Amino acid sequence: VGYLVTARWVANDGEEDTIREALRKMVEPSRAEPGCLYYQPSQDPEDGRNFLIAEVYSDEDAYKAHMETPHFKAIAGEAIPLLAARERGFYRTID
Amino acid sequence: VGYLVTARWVANDGEEDTIREALRKMVEPSRAEPGCLYYQPSQDPEDGRNFLIAEVYSDEDAYKAHMETPHFKAIAGEAIPLLAARERGFYRTID
Repeated sequence: VGYLVTARWVANDGEEDTIREALRKMVEPSRAEPGCLYYQPSQDPEDGRNFLIAEVYSDEDAYKAHMETPHFKAIAGEAIPLLAARERGFYRTID
Repeated sequence: VGYLVTARWVANDGEEDTIREALRKMVEPSRAEPGCLYYQPSQDPEDGRNFLIAEVYSDEDAYKAHMETPHFKAIAGEAIPLLAARERGFYRTID
């Protein structure tokens, strides 16, 4: 059983490209985390301010560890203040 | 670039186990579809009526093909009428 997180990010007007680039940079180091089973950011083609990140970790502790990584603190730490809204959902995978 | 779908399913009271089993059965044949890059159902541990399926296809046509498969028509076709709500989001992956 894994720990699935959906993170919905809504960029402030004009910050779409900055957020997209931040999420692109998050892909490689996030996937390389030992407890990260899946990490896929995406963008709404009809409203580029809307982003959705699908993430799966081995357990909740691995998700907490993700948020303590240097890449999360540096990249997400700069991006999150540029968001108009941020909502997360937390689930257990069905395997 | 892939086509990412989030499907939020809310089961009617008492149908949680039926929905969970239907989603469990969907995993293997969905992942075996040639255009399916990722398929992961999950359940909210705090309210078992809430399900979230994270899906990625090679493109929108592959998602449409998913909904025409025998397993989708048989398994999801029986499950969807047992839902109180069903919402989907459609995104392009950031790679």
